[in-house]
Amino acid sequence: MDFEYSKRSLELQERVDAFMQQYIFPLEEEYTSFVMNNPWKVFPEQDYLKRLAKEAGLWNLFLPKEYGKDSPGLTNLEYAPLAALMGRVLWSSQIFNCSAPDTGNMEVLSKYGTEAQKEEWLKPLLNGEMRSAFLMTEPDVASSDATNIETSIQRDGDEYVINGRKWWSTGAMNPNTKMYIVMGKTDANAHRHTQQSMIIVPANASGVKIVRPLRVFGALESPEGHAEIELKNVRVPVDNLLVGEGSGFAIAQGRLGPGRIHHCMRLIGCAQRALELMCARVQVRETFGKKVAQYSSIRQDIARSRCEIEQARLLTLAAADKIDRFGIKEAKDLVAMIKIAVPQIACDVIDRAIQAHGGLGVSSDTPLSEFWVYARALRIADGPDEVHMYQLGRNTIKKYT
Amino acid sequence: MDFEYSKRSLELQERVDAFMQQYIFPLEEEYTSFVMNNPWKVFPEQDYLKRLAKEAGLWNLFLPKEYGKDSPGLTNLEYAPLAALMGRVLWSSQIFNCSAPDTGNMEVLSKYGTEAQKEEWLKPLLNGEMRSAFLMTEPDVASSDATNIETSIQRDGDEYVINGRKWWSTGAMNPNTKMYIVMGKTDANAHRHTQQSMIIVPANASGVKIVRPLRVFGALESPEGHAEIELKNVRVPVDNLLVGEGSGFAIAQGRLGPGRIHHCMRLIGCAQRALELMCARVQVRETFGKKVAQYSSIRQDIARSRCEIEQARLLTLAAADKIDRFGIKEAKDLVAMIKIAVPQIACDVIDRAIQAHGGLGVSSDTPLSEFWVYARALRIADGPDEVHMYQLGRNTIKKYT
Amino acid sequence: MDFEYSKRSLELQERVDAFMQQYIFPLEEEYTSFVMNNPWKVFPEQDYLKRLAKEAGLWNLFLPKEYGKDSPGLTNLEYAPLAALMGRVLWSSQIFNCSAPDTGNMEVLSKYGTEAQKEEWLKPLLNGEMRSAFLMTEPDVASSDATNIETSIQRDGDEYVINGRKWWSTGAMNPNTKMYIVMGKTDANAHRHTQQSMIIVPANASGVKIVRPLRVFGALESPEGHAEIELKNVRVPVDNLLVGEGSGFAIAQGRLGPGRIHHCMRLIGCAQRALELMCARVQVRETFGKKVAQYSSIRQDIARSRCEIEQARLLTLAAADKIDRFGIKEAKDLVAMIKIAVPQIACDVIDRAIQAHGGLGVSSDTPLSEFWVYARALRIADGPDEVHMYQLGRNTIKKYT
Amino acid sequence: MDFEYSKRSLELQERVDAFMQQYIFPLEEEYTSFVMNNPWKVFPEQDYLKRLAKEAGLWNLFLPKEYGKDSPGLTNLEYAPLAALMGRVLWSSQIFNCSAPDTGNMEVLSKYGTEAQKEEWLKPLLNGEMRSAFLMTEPDVASSDATNIETSIQRDGDEYVINGRKWWSTGAMNPNTKMYIVMGKTDANAHRHTQQSMIIVPANASGVKIVRPLRVFGALESPEGHAEIELKNVRVPVDNLLVGEGSGFAIAQGRLGPGRIHHCMRLIGCAQRALELMCARVQVRETFGKKVAQYSSIRQDIARSRCEIEQARLLTLAAADKIDRFGIKEAKDLVAMIKIAVPQIACDVIDRAIQAHGGLGVSSDTPLSEFWVYARALRIADGPDEVHMYQLGRNTIKKYT
Repeated sequence: MDFEYSKRSLELQERVDAFMQQYIFPLEEEYTSFVMNNPWKVFPEQDYLKRLAKEAGLWNLFLPKEYGKDSPGLTNLEYAPLAALMGRVLWSSQIFNCSAPDTGNMEVLSKYGTEAQKEEWLKPLLNGEMRSAFLMTEPDVASSDATNIETSIQRDGDEYVINGRKWWSTGAMNPNTKMYIVMGKTDANAHRHTQQSMIIVPANASGVKIVRPLRVFGALESPEGHAEIELKNVRVPVDNLLVGEGSGFAIAQGRLGPGRIHHCMRLIGCAQRALELMCARVQVRETFGKKVAQYSSIRQDIARSRCEIEQARLLTLAAADKIDRFGIKEAKDLVAMIKIAVPQIACDVIDRAIQAHGGLGVSSDTPLSEFWVYARALRIADGPDEVHMYQLGRNTIKKYT
Repeated sequence: MDFEYSKRSLELQERVDAFMQQYIFPLEEEYTSFVMNNPWKVFPEQDYLKRLAKEAGLWNLFLPKEYGKDSPGLTNLEYAPLAALMGRVLWSSQIFNCSAPDTGNMEVLSKYGTEAQKEEWLKPLLNGEMRSAFLMTEPDVASSDATNIETSIQRDGDEYVINGRKWWSTGAMNPNTKMYIVMGKTDANAHRHTQQSMIIVPANASGVKIVRPLRVFGALESPEGHAEIELKNVRVPVDNLLVGEGSGFAIAQGRLGPGRIHHCMRLIGCAQRALELMCARVQVRETFGKKVAQYSSIRQDIARSRCEIEQARLLTLAAADKIDRFGIKEAKDLVAMIKIAVPQIACDVIDRAIQAHGGLGVSSDTPLSEFWVYARALRIADGPDEVHMYQLGRNTIKKYT
Repeated sequence: MDFEYSKRSLELQERVDAFMQQYIFPLEEEYTSFVMNNPWKVFPEQDYLKRLAKEAGLWNLFLPKEYGKDSPGLTNLEYAPLAALMGRVLWSSQIFNCSAPDTGNMEVLSKYGTEAQKEEWLKPLLNGEMRSAFLMTEPDVASSDATNIETSIQRDGDEYVINGRKWWSTGAMNPNTKMYIVMGKTDANAHRHTQQSMIIVPANASGVKIVRPLRVFGALESPEGHAEIELKNVRVPVDNLLVGEGSGFAIAQGRLGPGRIHHCMRLIGCAQRALELMCARVQVRETFGKKVAQYSSIRQDIARSRCEIEQARLLTLAAADKIDRFGIKEAKDLVAMIKIAVPQIACDVIDRAIQAHGGLGVSSDTPLSEFWVYARALRIADGPDEVHMYQLGRNTIKKYT
Repeated sequence: MDFEYSKRSLELQERVDAFMQQYIFPLEEEYTSFVMNNPWKVFPEQDYLKRLAKEAGLWNLFLPKEYGKDSPGLTNLEYAPLAALMGRVLWSSQIFNCSAPDTGNMEVLSKYGTEAQKEEWLKPLLNGEMRSAFLMTEPDVASSDATNIETSIQRDGDEYVINGRKWWSTGAMNPNTKMYIVMGKTDANAHRHTQQSMIIVPANASGVKIVRPLRVFGALESPEGHAEIELKNVRVPVDNLLVGEGSGFAIAQGRLGPGRIHHCMRLIGCAQRALELMCARVQVRETFGKKVAQYSSIRQDIARSRCEIEQARLLTLAAADKIDRFGIKEAKDLVAMIKIAVPQIACDVIDRAIQAHGGLGVSSDTPLSEFWVYARALRIADGPDEVHMYQLGRNTIKKYT
């Protein structure tokens, strides 16, 4: 056992940090102002920044080494701290072509895609030439129970016909988003875990209708956004199906491990930056004749936050290491643990930082309110805390009796 | 001691509820959609609704009976449950001409205004013909310590010249807002509690510049909004000063008691509605083969929420009663207690309701996310929790030693 | 609505407080030392103190006015603050003949006892000449579900034969305890709420065996203690049955309302005293060059505690008022709320006071550790929090849908 | 980075576990019964068990490898999981000669003792032939601020004369305890960190008086106990001083790192066992017609506990690793973090397990109540949470600004 990062990871941490210091942080204010005032437009400097990151070799770092030639060769454990660094500025992930849900979609296509699927969809994603969305959640049912899914994928000759309504399709509002991976049922009467299939749907397919963008706590989160989408007799070639009918649930399971590592590490980056902003703030702010930094209650908030971040980081790294060495199935409990623990910790830490900033903290003049909304949403996305605790509780009882 | 509302309060509770059932709830969805899509525009039905409320005698109910003829004659304790009912739809308060910061401004003008000030500013406010704002908080200092205030109010012949920068001026974005009450310093060298004065500034005075609307967790909160305002050599007649130089702090203190009752009771209304929405939701939602209502963890969330709401309600009513019978000064500790306890409880209850709603909960399709943002902001507005706990802690130690 | 105590209650509060200042507090240290060093012996001054209280008219105050001539005539609402005053020194309740489980047993006998039962058992209890116990909980089953009870009460001619094992029989170790009310099943096949009966068992009946005293967090809680008791072919006359076969559950329900008010108000007394001890302590203790009272974190602990105590008190008084005016059935939800909320709040407040006392806080040199153990046990006694939340949650969902 | 234990540690974990399964767990009930009924007597089987452990090579495992020939050669990181295993039965540590405060005293003597001191005091401690105590805390001052210490150590010719009053001297009640290391001031006017010295005092020295045993939440914690001790003109040879006058604070600092690792890992052992007991309990207990294990709220308690234990474990291991590789000074922040986080987590986890056990949980029939008391006391011992948060908060602010 050993708690030092690998040399390769440390060297990349330095380079990602340097890139952010040079190119990302200086543009942060401009970016925020742009997206607030230009809904559903892409930040003009984005392509330039992506090119810089690609040239610097800071590209697709998330793609685990088992994916072969497309991967820069990092383990999940080595990539994890890089995701945390990116988390400090939420829009920076895409500059490194490391942003959800593209990352998950690229993993799925790498692992399960046919050569034709890879050529058409994976290649432009790996090159950062387009974005994608993942259409899973539905408005009318509790999607954390996959058997509830109502979208149907029915074969009709050489095509599949898709009907359903999806929402919280993150990224679907982005004008660069060209394709969706859609989860639906090909056979509602099969065993509960083989009813579902995944299929590729071009964003411009006939019958696809973006009903509206959803707001999160009132925020649009442009340009990615979260769309409600109607799928009405959408027809795609049978070749667009991933793997085969009934494999949707299994693909979803496999996709979730690394994705959760990424989300959690980004949240740790958010929380870490929130802590640092809080420290800086209380050093300059005065009230009732002394620096805020000198109040013991503020120091408790800071001390607690530091303890929680460190624990969350170690737990997430342990989960990444487990995936790397034993596979997603063996890491199931640890992945559940980070899904339960980290978003809540991030909410708590960021909330304290907001409080220490007063009115500034709830405004959009710092990234704190955006961080908080991201963390809060992740207590619901990919299954609410309750579902994960229900299952982890059951597994734990089984393990110890 | 007796825990039943007065007959008059009960009768008005019934009427306010009936009005809301008939006119407010049916328009709720339309209102949300309008304000999301028409920033800084006033909801077209608003004037009509206000006229209806006025005709129904549900008007200015907040104004305590000691204000004489303008008051409908309720005590704070009698009004409190009406504020809770209005809190169920946040924009409804103004329909009854009971919304902040107009309520506080009307109280101040009633109590301290000259006849001329009343004629010009109080009358249209009481009639609901205009809105107003209260300019207290400043971006560069911790405003919870009034000695930090940097806005200057300097006499120059028959005029006062005002210079400063304010933010979180709630309501100042509203096109109907015609006047501000501004807090500033007339004498930075006086005793710490007589440096400050309050002065009336017309919204269209020369030198007033609305710099920008601030967002709260990304939301604009149109049409009221929260403005950042620059005051640059703004000149107003000396008659616009309230009471006299150096009385700003004292006026502010007196204003805070009932205002905090209102805010807390509205929050209790939010929390109560969140609880009811949660109960309704879990009764219809199913997951893993049973109703969500049957999970013991959900029942715990609901039970805890009910306990907390009931306690918050009783505490706030006790504070209102204390103000009614012994005055604001005697009620100081109780008012501090509700300021500390109620926004936090509301945050907790609403957060649980959000969680039980899944993705729907963070969206704008229910009032929950707006409720939460309101509650969270109130842990900072009018002094962050920390300031109130610091003072209440000190008072409590003094009281018991 | 009105938040002032009645004149009668205020006057009695003054007298109970004066009695405690004169007779109880001065003996507190001696009492603690005696019971620690003389397990299962009664404090020698006890009878003298009881006589003084009886002479002062501070006797059986708990007994509600509907009990007629034996009652001093207080409502539950009027008695509640007296129970809080007694809670400041846990052993003082018995000095006023107001201690559990005698109070509940006296209520039951007053309400349901035959004249003969009253003469034999109620009279000496009302006179403070003996103590009693209530044998409900069993070691092998979750007693919060009354259908689980395994003790059998079988009629055999003119006698009932009782077999079973009870534990957590509070007070049964006390040498003055002469009788038990025992809950058991007379008909295991009846409807779930008519299987149970209650029966009077003399402590010295043949077949009664005190197996051992149980410790609570390692403490004996002498002289009352908590006994594990074996009942082996214990025979009592059929006249010892309360009301009739199958009425045990109903009697238990009725007994719980006022008893929970008493427990909760005593806990509020504990918490209030803990707060006051904490305030006194931080005023005299210094660390790192300043008084502990000046640290903002300590002030937060104190401010939070004060808010929580005030809310707990109001909630409990509201429950008492509801019982007084509408009966126990109507007050069911409020009684559940205090059972859920108050022990937890007391634990939290006392725990903060312990922490502020350092090593002294966990010792027996202050009443804090004893308070905490009492509060913690009450999160389990009379049904664990979880059972009450489960039921209150269900009732609340029903109420709002 | 790598999250697998070393081979040596894994092998020892297996052996320590096997030893406990064979010799410790089977005696657990007998031990508890003995110490409850025989205060200040040593469990008769103790010497036999110690001999077995020594023969099995499971002896002094705590002593870090830098201590040379007396050490079995483990790093702190390798020993940590062994301490967690021992934590499952609190009295088992001494069977392996790994119990506080002997461990700290042995480290101090190994590192700083003269040959004569080692011969006289270290050797019998390493052999398990005697026990020892550490006299630091004083009743009248906040000992977390070392400048507050009032015990004086005055040179008088060839002797030091010691006067003072100590309490919470853990282990001093044990009849086998033969020596104390006493912290006092040799020069109250020196710099705040060179006023203090440590000196060896034989337990039977003239002038040493054990005033009384202190209880913790009412429990005696026999046979070790926590003593209040009066030191009145106690004279010891000058050679008994450790290192030299003024070095007491520095020795104390060095001693605290590994000691905190040990305490925290034992607490993790307690928490882990509490979790396992809880899982076993809810599998067999039924209420309202279903297994307690099936309630979602219980599963949440279990899931949260598992997450917290895992995080606490990783944080503590990280601290141990930091000490091993960079020394105690570099590990200061991490050691503060575990001191803050782990006792609180242990309290929370154990408290949930107690709740799930109902009345059984607060009794002495499971180790849960003893675990909880140990964990709660550790939120105060070695400096209360507040002191550590105050300092960690300050360091963190400095680190990030």
